[in-house]
Amino acid sequence: MKPTTGFATIDWRGDVLILLDQRKLPVEETYLHCADWQSTAEAITEMVVRGAPAIGITAAYGVVLAARAADGPLEDALAPAFAGLAATRPTAVNLFWALDRMKARLAAVADGPVAEARAALDAEARAIQAEDAVMCTAMGRHGAALLPEGARVLTHCNAGALATGGDGTAVAVIRRAWRDGTLARCYADETRPFLQGARLTAWELDRAGVPVTVITDNMAGWLMAEGGIDAVVVGFDRVVANGDAANKIGTYALAVLCKHHGIPFYFVGPTSSIDPASADGAAIRIERRPDREVTHVGPTRLVPEGVPVLNPAFDVTPAALIDAIVTERGVMRAPYGPAIAAQLADVGPGERRS
Amino acid sequence: MKPTTGFATIDWRGDVLILLDQRKLPVEETYLHCADWQSTAEAITEMVVRGAPAIGITAAYGVVLAARAADGPLEDALAPAFAGLAATRPTAVNLFWALDRMKARLAAVADGPVAEARAALDAEARAIQAEDAVMCTAMGRHGAALLPEGARVLTHCNAGALATGGDGTAVAVIRRAWRDGTLARCYADETRPFLQGARLTAWELDRAGVPVTVITDNMAGWLMAEGGIDAVVVGFDRVVANGDAANKIGTYALAVLCKHHGIPFYFVGPTSSIDPASADGAAIRIERRPDREVTHVGPTRLVPEGVPVLNPAFDVTPAALIDAIVTERGVMRAPYGPAIAAQLADVGPGERRS
Repeated sequence: MKPTTGFATIDWRGDVLILLDQRKLPVEETYLHCADWQSTAEAITEMVVRGAPAIGITAAYGVVLAARAADGPLEDALAPAFAGLAATRPTAVNLFWALDRMKARLAAVADGPVAEARAALDAEARAIQAEDAVMCTAMGRHGAALLPEGARVLTHCNAGALATGGDGTAVAVIRRAWRDGTLARCYADETRPFLQGARLTAWELDRAGVPVTVITDNMAGWLMAEGGIDAVVVGFDRVVANGDAANKIGTYALAVLCKHHGIPFYFVGPTSSIDPASADGAAIRIERRPDREVTHVGPTRLVPEGVPVLNPAFDVTPAALIDAIVTERGVMRAPYGPAIAAQLADVGPGERRS
Repeated sequence: MKPTTGFATIDWRGDVLILLDQRKLPVEETYLHCADWQSTAEAITEMVVRGAPAIGITAAYGVVLAARAADGPLEDALAPAFAGLAATRPTAVNLFWALDRMKARLAAVADGPVAEARAALDAEARAIQAEDAVMCTAMGRHGAALLPEGARVLTHCNAGALATGGDGTAVAVIRRAWRDGTLARCYADETRPFLQGARLTAWELDRAGVPVTVITDNMAGWLMAEGGIDAVVVGFDRVVANGDAANKIGTYALAVLCKHHGIPFYFVGPTSSIDPASADGAAIRIERRPDREVTHVGPTRLVPEGVPVLNPAFDVTPAALIDAIVTERGVMRAPYGPAIAAQLADVGPGERRS
């Protein structure tokens, strides 16, 4: 299923997984072919593909590739693939959810013929991707309804078609508002250190004809003070039971700036990224990424050799700074505890990722 | 006069001016020799040397080099040098101040022997540098007294020995606190887009043995929320009559974050950078710098071709967010209007730069 974005982030051909190599954007649009689970896992680790839903989808196809290559009983043969794929990105809740779903599907068909089990896993991975696209569309619709006419929206990182199986989460809102005629302009934080905003969000919005301007992360406060931003719309990697949300480093500072300027701050993501088992943000473990992302850009060294750097991939925004959390099921407002419980209660047991 | 920093930003040898080439930091420590005013002017234009006080000092030595090479009456012979040096960085207030001071000195000695006039200009340029070093030391002393034991201090951009004739402004505070044993660690924002924090502040503090860690600008909020920052100390480019302050883009967002977290926010700079003629921050015109600083790092393109970017060099922090303004004359607290008027009233007319 090719999305309507003009490119395919994750293109499953039945025997090979073709991934748009996001490390090379925005300069080169090249595609990486993964023919086994190991190269699929490596692609996740190396951030060829990134974004929580896209990682989950990719991992699911990694399991299908492992099943295609496996000899003998699939449950035993696939154990290394499940373990190896799970070890790629420790904060990505969708990764574990997608792998659990594939594992459950496998358990249901493991006693039958191997060929049928392979087909079932293939269908399950395709379903995960297709369901994600449907959810993106719903998030875009719910979120766009929150924006005023002529909205100038700031986003952070990339919660777009490059991060999902569809139009994105936060970016689906921006795309939808543009199609509806309510969006005037999107501002994209460049999002150091990995520059997903400059490299990816700007690329995919520009490609879609949405007016987008890139700023460095530290310009957001200035732009808000100038009256240039009407709303901040970002994705989330994980929302816990009380509404605290983990997302790309820098998100929390944006939420504080929004509070100071009286600008609404919205999180957008699927219910599958809600983790009701964790009480609050303190439970979220923050992934630390390699120093080199901070010390270098391309071949250029920015930080003197030997000087330490920090590289937390995420931060946690407390529920008190969040004006709404948008999922495929609708818009939640504070108090988030009951809102989340009610929204998750509407979700059938087979649908919820946790 | 060689500072105690382990390197000389501006090293005057009486017949040649040796400048640390800051464009090559932090990878290479190389020095550029300027034997005439033309190469000195080019070094300022090309940002071999940067930072308002350092630019003024460098231009003053440029005048001395021009006088050494001049034939005939100095006032006529030096006119091209004054014009050429003034044209290097059109927005640098200290540049014009230093050139005016050299011009006044020249006018006072122009009727005497040329050799004596040359010596007077040489002495004046050395005095400008030496006075700047003395002011840096005083700022360091006043500012360090504000910090608690074991302070973890965040700074932004480079307000250090690389930008002044001495220990720096904000960085003088950090250096002094380290020597006094009260500083536990300095965190340096990398300071996009020009990366002065990563490239310059980290280099000079590391060289001085001060423990320094580089973070991307968008990590500051997270680090504050983690309880990792006790104070933010930054330089300023300009403070106006009511205490509003212009400094490197990103400073304002840090001040908002400090307010949210109850962390003290301090500006440090010389009284010469106070502009009592402007009533408030709205009067400050913000310089826009070239797109390429945002779109590229070294040879690496970050932003897709054709996508617009913003690049304001400065932002304005309102007085209400500032806990203290430190100058060589002492510490000012709100209300800043009367505090600034009183501090400037203490300054002799020959001392103030405006």
